[in-house]
Amino acid sequence: MAHSYKTFAAEDLAALQAICGMERVIPGDQIGEDYTHDELSGTHSRPDVLVKAISTEEVSAVMKYAFANHIPVTPRGSGTGLVGGSVALCGGIMLDLTLMNHFLELDEENMTLTLEPGVLLMDVGKYVEPAGLFYPPDPGEKTATIGGNINTNAGGMRAVKYGVTRDYVRGLEVVLANGEIMNLGGKVVKNSSGYSLKDLIVGSEGTLGVVTKAILRLLPLPKHKISLLVPFPDLPSAIKAVPTVIRASSIPTAVEFMEREVILAAEEFLARKFPDNTSDAYLLLTYDGASREEVDLAWEEAAEICLKCGALDVFISNTQERNESIWSARGAFLEAIKASTTEMDECDVVVPRKHVAEFVLFSHALQQKHNVRIRSFGHAGDGNLHIYVLKDSLDEAAWKVKLKEVFADLYAKANELGGKVSGEHGIGYAKKPYLAESLSTDEKLLMKGIKTVFDPQNILNPNKLFTE
Amino acid sequence: MAHSYKTFAAEDLAALQAICGMERVIPGDQIGEDYTHDELSGTHSRPDVLVKAISTEEVSAVMKYAFANHIPVTPRGSGTGLVGGSVALCGGIMLDLTLMNHFLELDEENMTLTLEPGVLLMDVGKYVEPAGLFYPPDPGEKTATIGGNINTNAGGMRAVKYGVTRDYVRGLEVVLANGEIMNLGGKVVKNSSGYSLKDLIVGSEGTLGVVTKAILRLLPLPKHKISLLVPFPDLPSAIKAVPTVIRASSIPTAVEFMEREVILAAEEFLARKFPDNTSDAYLLLTYDGASREEVDLAWEEAAEICLKCGALDVFISNTQERNESIWSARGAFLEAIKASTTEMDECDVVVPRKHVAEFVLFSHALQQKHNVRIRSFGHAGDGNLHIYVLKDSLDEAAWKVKLKEVFADLYAKANELGGKVSGEHGIGYAKKPYLAESLSTDEKLLMKGIKTVFDPQNILNPNKLFTE
Repeated sequence: MAHSYKTFAAEDLAALQAICGMERVIPGDQIGEDYTHDELSGTHSRPDVLVKAISTEEVSAVMKYAFANHIPVTPRGSGTGLVGGSVALCGGIMLDLTLMNHFLELDEENMTLTLEPGVLLMDVGKYVEPAGLFYPPDPGEKTATIGGNINTNAGGMRAVKYGVTRDYVRGLEVVLANGEIMNLGGKVVKNSSGYSLKDLIVGSEGTLGVVTKAILRLLPLPKHKISLLVPFPDLPSAIKAVPTVIRASSIPTAVEFMEREVILAAEEFLARKFPDNTSDAYLLLTYDGASREEVDLAWEEAAEICLKCGALDVFISNTQERNESIWSARGAFLEAIKASTTEMDECDVVVPRKHVAEFVLFSHALQQKHNVRIRSFGHAGDGNLHIYVLKDSLDEAAWKVKLKEVFADLYAKANELGGKVSGEHGIGYAKKPYLAESLSTDEKLLMKGIKTVFDPQNILNPNKLFTE
Repeated sequence: MAHSYKTFAAEDLAALQAICGMERVIPGDQIGEDYTHDELSGTHSRPDVLVKAISTEEVSAVMKYAFANHIPVTPRGSGTGLVGGSVALCGGIMLDLTLMNHFLELDEENMTLTLEPGVLLMDVGKYVEPAGLFYPPDPGEKTATIGGNINTNAGGMRAVKYGVTRDYVRGLEVVLANGEIMNLGGKVVKNSSGYSLKDLIVGSEGTLGVVTKAILRLLPLPKHKISLLVPFPDLPSAIKAVPTVIRASSIPTAVEFMEREVILAAEEFLARKFPDNTSDAYLLLTYDGASREEVDLAWEEAAEICLKCGALDVFISNTQERNESIWSARGAFLEAIKASTTEMDECDVVVPRKHVAEFVLFSHALQQKHNVRIRSFGHAGDGNLHIYVLKDSLDEAAWKVKLKEVFADLYAKANELGGKVSGEHGIGYAKKPYLAESLSTDEKLLMKGIKTVFDPQNILNPNKLFTE
């Protein structure tokens, strides 16, 4: 793959060590195995060097060197991605940003948080909540970095009410392919001053620039919160209730759906009981708000709607303990499914909300058609589904073939329903063929044109997003 | 300006008439004066032909012809812009989209509205409210088209709580410079599938493509709403209360500030009394929500905060009549100021919220420094200010000089405070020099590079955004 790049040599290692010092520039043969893959995509590649940057100036100097010498650079956060986005497929420099993990400014008057990209998502809430502030995006993987969240435009559970990462990025500092440092947006709430380069960087998976600082928008912390666990006799009746629940007076914070078999897997994985596992399908609803009254009115209306739509019961979860037991199970679904099989791959499509039931039932039917185990859970409220195809006892060759066939069916169906290839995990390397299929020729040309404008030498995270 | 474009000739007129018919293709000399300017920018130019398109296919055919023959095209909605964005400065084709004003689909389950770009903002609310739905963006100019709102990323009063137009554009159909039709986004809530071309089109002022259809996101209609008119002894104390009000438990829908002199102008203009005009400065707050209790809790907390911050009183406006009298005055500010002078120009900067007071006081001081009348009002809650410089009895030459000096001071100050050239009106032609000054060399290169990718011949709304 690295056909046209400079072959990484001792002089390059020395030059990078001159920039960042010996300890934070690790030669390829000494790089830990963790850095050769991510959490799921099946991609493996060892970078020629690992650079652990600690400042924007270092990132800039590294990029200037890479630009001058035509060396590929793969930016990386926690490596928790699922599509190979942070794997150094063309070798070269892996630019680790996890040491740039400082909070820079909590501006309470402007309700913004300025931070470095290596801060972990799980630490953001903890940092702002004592000030009565709230960072709404809530992707499942809490050990991901904010930089990774920005680069994949991560979504998460609360997108129904609060939107996705893009909606909370007010400003970015970005190091370009040539090493120049650029500031986009700021602390302002509105902006109609030329093309929104900031929105182009969000979700660009490290292919247009390296995010070295972000200004995030915060909201007042909702003082009250409640979750409802709602059992239904079957999945279609559960999911069919969703549009009516969302159309009620108050928008729920989250609407997750889960099936019995996934709950059982989570119980086994966590060795901990879920509040109920007797029904085939469940909706998990959350409401939050500034007052108890507001939240009570919201959940009471929702409970009534669910019961009218065929719910068997409504379990209210307003204690820390009960919330914990529900949400820790929800948080463990991915790992639990992973632990139940030898290997798996996932499809992260998003479809219009009203087609969620149809899509999930379609994925169920594929189990029989392709004789393979398929599990799913996801964000019923925003149409973003996580469908897992499990390898189980298949041999490697049969697995590859099977996966290709099942994925072809899944992505074709998503396309047919007006859906998109990725709701929140991104394209990376693994989903490139499906993105290519789903885009029009014009879209592909425009995206590639934009890539060339930002990165004419194609050194920034090459071999991602587009099939070249 | 039209140096490198084809000189528009009889054959071009005939070709366009063959596409759209005789009645909807109007030769330059028969075009009404309205089409030669917008509402404020002082730019004037007569297009060579006015084409009133009625379908995407027509827009596509017109663009294909323009592309093949190198003729500039200026898309236009209601022409209510303030910066010359819809004025055909290079002649050629003015592409009027106001006849493409149909609602195409209200999808209640997905909570989306699909419509053509010529639908007026004022008609969107009326259309969705009977279904209990709500389109939050609320720019002051209700006769603007949705297409124009999308192209300027219009903001409006409710941005504090609900965000701007960008946040409500789920999908777009766009005709490219070469006439190809492209669909971006859709009805999906999340999307991490390649670069967000949709977000690049939003706010691009017709320079990257012609928006021919939009899918807008809707919310549940808030059932309760209340406005508070809060008099303060002076402007600084009014504006200083704003961050505390916004940091309270509930975010206000709108926070406007207004000064006595602007209220008096509006009273005279409307020949109608404002509820109160005895104080120097006012905040106008709105709260909305799903229940009476929620809204009451919110405004009671806000009223308390305002009184603690020095407010003289709090007038509650919960009747249709009283709301009408306040908001019609607010809606008339621009026209009232305009009617009070011979000519004016405006500065639509946005600054971080906590610098609003500083910026407005700075603009006050400029009256004395430059011996000119300056009026302002604006969105205290989101930092977007509308500062008007009034010509009064100045002669044309002195006015031009004065305006340049005052604007230089205003934009330099905004820059110094981390602000942006335009919060919501866009750049168009009139604000090009200020955008150029505020952007870094890299940003300019990237924006121009993007323009070239989308429109290599520079036929789409040329001479806008960038100084060439």
